[in-house]
Amino acid sequence: MPLLSFPGISTLIAKGVYDAAFPLHDVSVSREVLFEEWARYSAFYKYQPIDLVRKYFGEKIGLYFAWLGVYTQLLIPASIVGIIVFGYGVATVDTNIPSLEMCDERLNFTMCPLCDGACDYWHLSTACGTARASHLFDNPATVFFAIFMSLWAVLFLEHWKRRQISLSFSWDLTGIEEDEEHPRPKYETILLEKRQRNTNAVLYTVHFLDIYHTLTNCQSIFFSLCCQFGLTFSAVFGVIIYRITISALMAMSPDPEIKSNVRVTVTATAVIINLVVILILDEIYGTVALWLTELEIPKTETNFEERLILKAFLLKFMNAYAPIFYVAFFKGRFAGRPGSYVYVFNDYRMEECAPGGCLIELCIQLSIIMLGKQLIQNNIFEIGIPKLKKLIRTLKEKEPTQKEKDEERPPRQWNLDYALVPFEGLTPEYMEMIIQFGFVSLFVASFPLAPLFALLNNVIEIRLDARKFVTELRRPVAARAKDIGIWYNILSGMGKLSVIINAFVIAFTSDFIPRLVYQYMYSQTGTMHGFIDHTLSFFNVSNFKPGTAPHSSDHGDITVCRYKDYREPPWSSDAYQFSKQYWSVLSARLAFVILFQNLVMFLSLMVAWVIPDVPKTIVEQLKREKKLLVDLFLQEEKEKFQLIQTRPLFWTSLCPESLGSRLLRNIRLLEEWIFKQLDLILPRRYHLAVTYVML
Amino acid sequence: MPLLSFPGISTLIAKGVYDAAFPLHDVSVSREVLFEEWARYSAFYKYQPIDLVRKYFGEKIGLYFAWLGVYTQLLIPASIVGIIVFGYGVATVDTNIPSLEMCDERLNFTMCPLCDGACDYWHLSTACGTARASHLFDNPATVFFAIFMSLWAVLFLEHWKRRQISLSFSWDLTGIEEDEEHPRPKYETILLEKRQRNTNAVLYTVHFLDIYHTLTNCQSIFFSLCCQFGLTFSAVFGVIIYRITISALMAMSPDPEIKSNVRVTVTATAVIINLVVILILDEIYGTVALWLTELEIPKTETNFEERLILKAFLLKFMNAYAPIFYVAFFKGRFAGRPGSYVYVFNDYRMEECAPGGCLIELCIQLSIIMLGKQLIQNNIFEIGIPKLKKLIRTLKEKEPTQKEKDEERPPRQWNLDYALVPFEGLTPEYMEMIIQFGFVSLFVASFPLAPLFALLNNVIEIRLDARKFVTELRRPVAARAKDIGIWYNILSGMGKLSVIINAFVIAFTSDFIPRLVYQYMYSQTGTMHGFIDHTLSFFNVSNFKPGTAPHSSDHGDITVCRYKDYREPPWSSDAYQFSKQYWSVLSARLAFVILFQNLVMFLSLMVAWVIPDVPKTIVEQLKREKKLLVDLFLQEEKEKFQLIQTRPLFWTSLCPESLGSRLLRNIRLLEEWIFKQLDLILPRRYHLAVTYVML
Repeated sequence: MPLLSFPGISTLIAKGVYDAAFPLHDVSVSREVLFEEWARYSAFYKYQPIDLVRKYFGEKIGLYFAWLGVYTQLLIPASIVGIIVFGYGVATVDTNIPSLEMCDERLNFTMCPLCDGACDYWHLSTACGTARASHLFDNPATVFFAIFMSLWAVLFLEHWKRRQISLSFSWDLTGIEEDEEHPRPKYETILLEKRQRNTNAVLYTVHFLDIYHTLTNCQSIFFSLCCQFGLTFSAVFGVIIYRITISALMAMSPDPEIKSNVRVTVTATAVIINLVVILILDEIYGTVALWLTELEIPKTETNFEERLILKAFLLKFMNAYAPIFYVAFFKGRFAGRPGSYVYVFNDYRMEECAPGGCLIELCIQLSIIMLGKQLIQNNIFEIGIPKLKKLIRTLKEKEPTQKEKDEERPPRQWNLDYALVPFEGLTPEYMEMIIQFGFVSLFVASFPLAPLFALLNNVIEIRLDARKFVTELRRPVAARAKDIGIWYNILSGMGKLSVIINAFVIAFTSDFIPRLVYQYMYSQTGTMHGFIDHTLSFFNVSNFKPGTAPHSSDHGDITVCRYKDYREPPWSSDAYQFSKQYWSVLSARLAFVILFQNLVMFLSLMVAWVIPDVPKTIVEQLKREKKLLVDLFLQEEKEKFQLIQTRPLFWTSLCPESLGSRLLRNIRLLEEWIFKQLDLILPRRYHLAVTYVML
Repeated sequence: MPLLSFPGISTLIAKGVYDAAFPLHDVSVSREVLFEEWARYSAFYKYQPIDLVRKYFGEKIGLYFAWLGVYTQLLIPASIVGIIVFGYGVATVDTNIPSLEMCDERLNFTMCPLCDGACDYWHLSTACGTARASHLFDNPATVFFAIFMSLWAVLFLEHWKRRQISLSFSWDLTGIEEDEEHPRPKYETILLEKRQRNTNAVLYTVHFLDIYHTLTNCQSIFFSLCCQFGLTFSAVFGVIIYRITISALMAMSPDPEIKSNVRVTVTATAVIINLVVILILDEIYGTVALWLTELEIPKTETNFEERLILKAFLLKFMNAYAPIFYVAFFKGRFAGRPGSYVYVFNDYRMEECAPGGCLIELCIQLSIIMLGKQLIQNNIFEIGIPKLKKLIRTLKEKEPTQKEKDEERPPRQWNLDYALVPFEGLTPEYMEMIIQFGFVSLFVASFPLAPLFALLNNVIEIRLDARKFVTELRRPVAARAKDIGIWYNILSGMGKLSVIINAFVIAFTSDFIPRLVYQYMYSQTGTMHGFIDHTLSFFNVSNFKPGTAPHSSDHGDITVCRYKDYREPPWSSDAYQFSKQYWSVLSARLAFVILFQNLVMFLSLMVAWVIPDVPKTIVEQLKREKKLLVDLFLQEEKEKFQLIQTRPLFWTSLCPESLGSRLLRNIRLLEEWIFKQLDLILPRRYHLAVTYVML
């Protein structure tokens, strides 16, 4: 059977003949050195010994750690700038007019109630805390930071390109071409089964099978992916419903203690639920992606890996960012207005953002999910579960061997290594980092401290991964790789996406644009005084629908309440329609998106254009090598020519003097013939090598 | 002197020792065939014999014609779609409600006068013609066409990438590396002069000179470039002034004949002046770019070329597109409103767009400049001037030789070729096409017939260039090139720029967005009826500034006139301020730009991603070649192994039987040593060749 013409250990493992096959750990010096210099937490401030890692684990794993190192290193400047930006927010919070106005009790804005019936009118100054917190993240420095981080992402990719080329030069990977891969053992097995089941096997050529599979499975894969997306969205929606109902129920409760803590309790619990859902779905999606890729029966290992990565990335990306996207772009935008609220399930009002603005909610959401995901994944999934697995494995094995223990020899290296966890590819490691890169780049405008948290995590992550590879995993089969493959494309795609997302976050989620518009278009004095008043619309309480007005009020006789929106006042001819301010602010927001996006794209192009892909040292080294080769060649050619012209034949000295002239001529002819053939066949630079050998 | 260690013919020409050096034209079959099959206009429908071109002129010129061929070929589908889009405009012009409403005399819109004092009020229905013409280019199909053309540009670049790889494969260019270039003769000469002038020559190392030059010249080059930009802008501005003053003067003329033709006369003459200015400045800029690049004294020829191209491109791009940019994005936007017009030189009102919209003016501007530039450049610069030069050259030479004519031999090939025009690089050819590509891509939303005109031009251009190369130019020195170099980057940059420019043309220059907004936001019936009324604001004639109201009017007693803008009516509280409609339309326009840009960028990425860079046939061929090589190698290895194992030494057969065993052992040792050395030094695939030779 030609299909199975590549029998090998992997086929035998796939068939279950063998249990496992792995290279043994090297107990000699190198593992020791790796552990000492690389895998200890106390070495966190050191550069990684990448060459040693490559020597022990192969190029592919070496490249992963080199990439992680470059990423972590570049997070340092990003963190510093992030801290400065945050510091600017902290320093200016007491001089910031909008938050001062919000906290000013003399301004006495009576706001419309936050829920129907049970809630009372409230004073804006009670939301002073969130307003001040909001300013920490929602200030002009954030805009600068978003531009900075977009350029940082480009810089990171360019820097990595250079590092990759340096590495592939020093690891001698420049010339390697990808050999044609063998089919995966599973692919062969499944093909074989299909053939055996089908009697008229002639019809099933390999190619036909491929197409057949692609067609039948494409459908089911698309369907499953949609299902998963649906699952994510319904999870997000479920949490929204949870938030809405719990807030409503708590607001109706008579206990004032409960009432005052509504927002904090609900937000906190909801984010934690989100986090738990994300963590659970993350694991499920990993399995689902694997299962779907198996369904496709990709032919080669590379093919399999690429498809798996794409699917897993899509699913996990959706999963991690869906709730954040919701808070950033949708929350509070469909809540309606007083007198015409939007209701879910006929009973519950759609949720609104906190009075301080949506950005602070986005910031909370982002920080908790990011930190929670990192902490839990690092501690439980990367440390806890492998330890647990190992424990179970050793427990299982110990029971039968308990009696035979005494008569047995001390365990050999393969027994020790067999007890370790098998290596399952770099995909989960890369995936974790890429999702983190998303937190650092996609929504960085709302949370300038994200790079700092990423940096802290990664400093630990490098040593954690190193320790795992050195002590907890079976030694992986060394694999060559020229680059980090599809991950580079994913990173670059995320970098591009981050520009537009940050533009929208600044324009629509933050209050940056409304403030600018107010200052330069509407403010009488050219300052921010009166901004809060300007953002609040009027509502005539007599326009409340029956039953939705507050049942009782501590605020005395209220005729008009305020709400955050740009709408015409009740006394206007088209009351409660969007006002001219609304449209002018919207125009400014959209104009900002266009300006920001094109400016950043242009700057990114310039950055990528200015930084050469190949470092100068390497260009020079290559030139020098080439020059040496040419010089050597010229030298040798000259010598050869002289030798042929003047020297007696070398080989004749091997034969005794007594040899006849016929033989001598024969040898001379042979020599000439060899050189002629070499001239025809070999390129010039190998020619010289041959000449050297022959002389 | 080490600097002049590369003396050569080009150095001698640069020093004026020789007059010219060129390869001779091949009068044998190949030039004949090229002329017959390639350079005749009657061959316009044929594919170009690219391989023959490459053989005769070298790879660099071959690549230019291949690129031109691909571009022209891809213009065919673009032209067809363009014609269909234009056809849609023609077909729907009689059912289009806005232009019907503009032509409807019953609606009787009295428009405010177009100039101060001398002009009268006028009826909108008199602008019926431009409204109908406007619809031909300003209809929903144009939006589709703009998206199509953006994708077309990406497709063109991708297609060319594939073609380039195919060509470099079949022309065996895949392996070539760029050798270190020799310095340009001029660079050496100038360096030498500087040295001789300077006595303490030790200080002037080459490197130092480079830096010194860069620093001193950077400034002057930047300054000159700014001057040129200033020149372009002042030319554009001059034409604007011309238009404004002439319109004003003509409007004041008492002759009604002149009055009625104001717009047509002024627009036509102004565009022609624009065109002439562009053509003249184009030639000047070519010289300026050359001069500036010479100032920089670039070291190598490639370096020189790249710098020249960048400068020339920047200047010519500005020159060709500045008036078009003005019409597209600035004309009519600073005209002010009735009662508060903007004046230039205190006397003349800023010009407005035609009543049919700015798009029709953009269309006229674009078509005249594009067609005029192509026709004049093709006829005068590419055919006329070379002919004239040749004539002058032959006239000059004939005069002294008149007497010696009889005694002379028939002219030899070098005499014939010397009389031809010297070849001056491909830059002007590429430049012309790139500027044309700009017309086809940058503003295609306003003129769907641009691809058609480009196609017609290029079909002729190919044969014209071919004829020039075959019959009118000295044969260029064949040069190798892997790709079209910096031109590809310029093309790709233009493709990117075209997306955003087309987005703005559709959003701001055409009336597409206001129509959509009217239909879905303001229209009572959901149809376009009433659109014209909606776009016209009211003006109370009593608000005219003293002296600006019409001196006399045929329209009886007018109290209110209309003008095209979204402003509050005179009876509103904030009269003549931008109305809510203005802001909502602006928002819609900006939202459209964001949507269009991101959609098209996403689609472009998808197109570039879906189309593989290397054609499948070539991938397969490379695979096949590799497989053959590996098979051959395996076969040879096997044979070699067998031979070494079983066969008596080959070389021993050369020596007579009588040879002693010592000698035999020596030869055997030598053989083994050679193989060992080969193993160490040679890569495996050359190994087999050596093995083959030695056996």
